Order: sequence, then C-alpha cells, then structure tokens
Amino acid sequence: MATITLLTDFGIKDAYAGIMKGVIASINPSASVIDISHHVAPQDVVHAAYLIKSFYGYFPESSVHVIVVDPGVGSNRRIIALEKNGHIFLAPDNGVLTLLMGKEKNNTLVSVENSRYFLKPVSRTFHGRDIFAPVAAHISNGLDLNKLGRKLKKEDLINLNVQTPYMDEKGRLIGVIVWVDHFGNCMTNIEENILRKFTVKGSGNNLEIISGGKSINGIAESYADVKQKQPLAIMGSSGYLEIAVNCGNAKNLLKIKKGDIIRVIKPDIADA
Amino acid sequence: MATITLLTDFGIKDAYAGIMKGVIASINPSASVIDISHHVAPQDVVHAAYLIKSFYGYFPESSVHVIVVDPGVGSNRRIIALEKNGHIFLAPDNGVLTLLMGKEKNNTLVSVENSRYFLKPVSRTFHGRDIFAPVAAHISNGLDLNKLGRKLKKEDLINLNVQTPYMDEKGRLIGVIVWVDHFGNCMTNIEENILRKFTVKGSGNNLEIISGGKSINGIAESYADVKQKQPLAIMGSSGYLEIAVNCGNAKNLLKIKKGDIIRVIKPDIADA
Amino acid sequence: MATITLLTDFGIKDAYAGIMKGVIASINPSASVIDISHHVAPQDVVHAAYLIKSFYGYFPESSVHVIVVDPGVGSNRRIIALEKNGHIFLAPDNGVLTLLMGKEKNNTLVSVENSRYFLKPVSRTFHGRDIFAPVAAHISNGLDLNKLGRKLKKEDLINLNVQTPYMDEKGRLIGVIVWVDHFGNCMTNIEENILRKFTVKGSGNNLEIISGGKSINGIAESYADVKQKQPLAIMGSSGYLEIAVNCGNAKNLLKIKKGDIIRVIKPDIADA
Repeated sequence: MATITLLTDFGIKDAYAGIMKGVIASINPSASVIDISHHVAPQDVVHAAYLIKSFYGYFPESSVHVIVVDPGVGSNRRIIALEKNGHIFLAPDNGVLTLLMGKEKNNTLVSVENSRYFLKPVSRTFHGRDIFAPVAAHISNGLDLNKLGRKLKKEDLINLNVQTPYMDEKGRLIGVIVWVDHFGNCMTNIEENILRKFTVKGSGNNLEIISGGKSINGIAESYADVKQKQPLAIMGSSGYLEIAVNCGNAKNLLKIKKGDIIRVIKPDIADA
Repeated sequence: MATITLLTDFGIKDAYAGIMKGVIASINPSASVIDISHHVAPQDVVHAAYLIKSFYGYFPESSVHVIVVDPGVGSNRRIIALEKNGHIFLAPDNGVLTLLMGKEKNNTLVSVENSRYFLKPVSRTFHGRDIFAPVAAHISNGLDLNKLGRKLKKEDLINLNVQTPYMDEKGRLIGVIVWVDHFGNCMTNIEENILRKFTVKGSGNNLEIISGGKSINGIAESYADVKQKQPLAIMGSSGYLEIAVNCGNAKNLLKIKKGDIIRVIKPDIADA
Repeated sequence: MATITLLTDFGIKDAYAGIMKGVIASINPSASVIDISHHVAPQDVVHAAYLIKSFYGYFPESSVHVIVVDPGVGSNRRIIALEKNGHIFLAPDNGVLTLLMGKEKNNTLVSVENSRYFLKPVSRTFHGRDIFAPVAAHISNGLDLNKLGRKLKKEDLINLNVQTPYMDEKGRLIGVIVWVDHFGNCMTNIEENILRKFTVKGSGNNLEIISGGKSINGIAESYADVKQKQPLAIMGSSGYLEIAVNCGNAKNLLKIKKGDIIRVIKPDIADA
C-alpha cells in the first residue's frame, strides 16, 4: 500500500486538507494518506524545512511526501519533485527542500509541468488541490518522475537562507532557536555532529549553554537527569540540541522564543 | 475501497471523532474514513452548509459524507440520507443540506429511522456514535438507502435561512462574509455565476468592492497580482468571491469578521 | 485489517504523531491507524485514564490501543502491554490504565522489554516513536504479548490516585469535574451505576445537583429537556454524570472548571 504524507500550513478548521485527500482517493483509492502537520505557521518555509528532515526517514521507502507551505501560490514559482534516499518529495520551489538536499548531486529532480496530471481547471489559489494532490496520487500509482517535466539541477532551485551554527570570535558555538514544540521544548539548529566536533571528545558534559539569559551546565542524557521544573539541554529526538524543562515548559519558564540566540561555551573559554 | 468523510463540530481534543471511526471500523473494516473538519463552530449549521458544497465533488463517487453539526441532538429532529450526484449525504434535518439540494427534485431522500442499523441503546447525547457512524458504515457496505426509512420530499425538510446576495436600490450587489479561513481569507456568499451576471461581461476588473470600510479595485487573478500585505478580491477556490491579503491575513489587517456586509459596485454607479 | 489507535499529549502542530504512523506503516503497512486524541493536556494521566474507558469498547476486537501520556519518558518507568476484553493496550506504567483494569485478575499483562521489537537506537526523549509505535505494529501483526517481556501482576503496577465519588457526613454524593469537553460540557467522575445506587429507584428526577454554585433539579433525559441556554445534568455518552447547557457552553456559563466539586443531594436531605 503506497503511503503519501501531507505537511501544510492549511490548519484543520477548513476543508483544505480533506479535499486533497479526496482528490488522492479519486486517483489512487488504496493510497494511505498520513498527516504530518497542517500547523506549520502560515508560510513559514524554514520551519517546514526542518520538519521534513526530521520525519521522512521513519516512513516506508517509496513514500511520497507532499509539502504545501507556499506563500507564492498563483505566482510563477515552480513546483518540483525530488527523489532522494528512496523517498519522493513534492514541494514548491521556495527553498523548503534546501536542508534536505544537502550537498549530494545525484538525485532525480524535475520541474512539475505536465498538466496531464493536474486537475482542470487549475485554480490560482489552491494548487494543493489542483496540482500537488493529483500529482502525488499519480506518483504513488507508479508514475515515473521524468513524465512530470524536464530535469533540473540543484543549482536551478531557490535556496533557503537558513542560519547555520557558527563559531564566534570568542570561540563560542552560536546557534538559534528554530522552533518551539507543543510541549514548549525549544529546538536549536545545532546538530549532534556539529556539537560533537565542537566538543572534540563527544561528551558535552562540560559545556555551558546560555539560552534566554539562563545558564545550563552540560548536556543531559534524559529529562529526568534534572529535578522537575528544572531546565536542561539535551539532544532532541530529531537530532538537534534542544532546551527543555523536566515535566515543564521551557518556552514559558525560560521565556525563550523562536529566533532567540543560543550560545554553547567550553569551560576553558567560559567568560566570567 | 469505500470512502466515508466526517464533518462535525466535535473539535479534536475529545475522543468523539475517534469513537465514530471505531464504530465504522467495526462494521466496515475496509472503509477509508477521511476527516473534512471537526472545527465547524459549535452548532454553526450555515458554515457547515457552505463547506459541504465546497468539498464533496473532489471525492470518489459513492462516497458517504457524514455531517454531524447538530444542535438538536436528543430532540425529535429527524436524520436524513440523501443521494445526489452519485454521492450520499447523512445529516440531521436542520437545514445543513439546503445549499447542496438546489432546485432539482429527483434525488433519493429518506428519513433514517430503521433502528436495525443503529447501535443499541441509542444515547440521547451522541447520535454521531450511535446512529450516524453505524448507518454510514452500513451504507458504505452497500445498504440501499430505502432500507433506512420512508421516502421524503424536499418540501418536508427544514430549510436553512441563508442570506443570498441581492441587488440594493442603488444597483449594488450586496453579499455577506460567511466564513473566515485559517489564513484570514474572508469568504463571501457571492458565487462566480452571480458575479458574472452582475458584471455582464464577466471580467469584473472594473468593479469596486467595499469590505470592512476598505475599497478594493477589481477582481484579481492571483494573490500575487497585488503587492505583499495589500488587499485584493479574488474568486476563491471554492467558487465564492473572497477578500484576501497577499502574504497576509485579511481578517486581521482589514478587521473583517463573519457576518460583515460586502458591496460590489459597478463603476458607472459608484457613489462618491 | 488491524486497527491501532493513538491517544497522546503530543498536540498536532509537530510531526510526532505522524512519525509514529510512519514507523507503524513501515512494519505493518495494512494497519489502520486511528487518532483518538493528541490533545490530552500535557502529561495529564488522569484525563487519559478516563478517556481510555470511554472509547475502546467501540473499536473492533483485537485493536491495539497506544497511550503515550508519559511525563516519565527517559526515566526508568516501565512500559506495559495489557490484554483485556479482547483489546490490547500499550501504555507507560504510570497509572493511566488503573481505571480500565478494574478488579479482575485474569488479564495478560507484561512488561515491554524485548528490544528486538524496538527501533534502534532508542532515544531518551521519544519512546512513542522508538518503542510504542514499533511494538504496536508488531502486535497488530500478531505478535504474542508474552514475547515482549515477563509477566506482571496488577499489584506490580503504579496505581493512579483518582478521586472516587463518596458520601459525605450529610449523606450527599460528592463528585468532581474530571474534564471539560470541546462543547464546554463538564464531565464528573460519577458513573451511572453509582448514581443509581445512591438514588435507589434509578430515576434521579428528584435529585438536586449543585455545581459551580448553581443548583440543577433532576437528571434530564436530553439536552432539549430544558430551554436553550439553561443548565442541566444528564448521563453523558461515556457513562458519567455531566453538567451541560442546552445549545450553550456550561464551562463558560456556569464558570465550572476541572477539579470543581459537584454535590448530588436527595430531596429529603437537601440542606436549606
């Protein structure tokens, strides 16, 4: 049974996501459609870009992942289809796949142009229904991506301007909070391998993490490593350093918000 | 695979919608159940009536569409089943199907009375679980609607008192905002064919639209026709005139709310 | 087709629930996964405990019910699998199954320990993905619970400290509001059989119910038994006494909140 996932900023009070599922069921009745989230902040391409990296690997090979976070609907922005690591991604060409792409070259990447696989007429305001859903359904039916349109190179695509962690002049690792989850856990853009390089020995237990004006000592192994309602830093389940509070809400308790800076300091360079 | 859709005002924090799916799975394990929305404002029959028209056509033929927006649960309001355009609708007799019905006569329309297809005992507070879900599952299994109860005529039903667009004494087309979507786009009750009749030539590009005290010139073809954060009027994807803001939220920026009046003015009659 | 249900406190803005479905689809592609709710208040084990009792009976036999309301993730709290009444429950050992368990002894109850059925590596922060989802999928594929780990006795488990209704010194039945639903209906912890014992004759129509400082006379049969916007007490669809308002919101109108006391008084003992 083919799996199609949906990641959008549609919310769930309107019928938009349901309509996409109706279109898919009309073309591939046996496809299994799974909601990732419809609550990306409206048109927050960066958040969607991080989410994609965190979820797709847990799905069966050949899954079709549909991303409709699309401030440019109705303009002449392109829609692209990408095959990577055995998964297929269908998204607007607005940078939402930048983080996923990485530096490899040899993926199938095409421009979605063949209107034979679209609903007709194509509206100017709801490409999720008229292009993304039917194209995803056809792909899940086995359609060759090359039938959708001409090949593209990675260099042809819009690139997302994401902040990457860097070392400042004092030798501190500087990251940023990229999203805050339902529990108030605050995800940074610092991946495990970057932190490991920074710490050399890979333990991280001697680090000092400054977030929201608060200092946290070391990287915990589990929420329960600190007392209830106490803050901690931990490698989150999606592979990024995360600021959390044991049995509590870090966003509220530490007054952290998206875009806040986080500093990771080695003890030998900690400034007084 | 039979498709059943759910449109309710149940919200998603309780188990109500999940329980309906459990009942359906117990009767027709292979039915595919698709959520349209569980966020119709509690007991807002008018909103549900507009939503139904906008989504059902995108589903496979023979889909069963279950609508549980039902202020009268437990009273003696009727439940009805309607076959129209190859789709089946199961809803309380409270006017929620009025817009869908239109003026045709020759649909199958029955009163849902045969308790053989209900859960037992039928509670007085949760007909979604005890009547709608099992009846929908039996229909998706191929049950003839006529087995559910006696035939009804359209005239037997409760009629929804919806505001329809009209021409005022100054020759302006007067509509109303019927719902505001997740993006803050404001849907009117003005359908494309009504607007076309009003404008005679079908272009609409000379119209002036007054909404929330703000004047908008012409009907845009796409959000990107105006600058970012600027308001526009556009034919929405569900076939109704819509007030939106490019990359923004019309509800917040223009301070529009449900029930607000919208006026469409031809230039030759525009009042100073 | 095997049915798996999900009850969590994950919310729906992140990808957490979607990721669990991806893991399940990778192990049992034909499983049907149904969301009960992802909006249990973060880490509210009591609410989840009541919900479980209310929904599982409406699902097909052999359904696997996954409960991830888990303040103790990453600590050494146990995960348990329980077979009861032909259903399987997978939950943290934190009392969330206490209400379901009742007083019977003869269920299959095991400790989930066999990492052969887990994802690897098991993270310290997302057991929903790494343990609950894969184990549920394997169970839905027919895995014998005894393969998961050693047998437990009910006495081995953490017991939830739930308030049960009691009779006070004046002979009044004292309950508590355990949750408020989407409509503002306020559920108590008073089950029908307890109320029936209290009233002897089972009618309840002579009772006085005091909630939120407001007195309600008798148990209604249906919301429509009182005028619109008037409060009523009624046996709710999940089998607990409920305070509601006909076509209104009891929480807002009566200013009731979770944890509030409710008193049920027989007329002969009503205090002035």
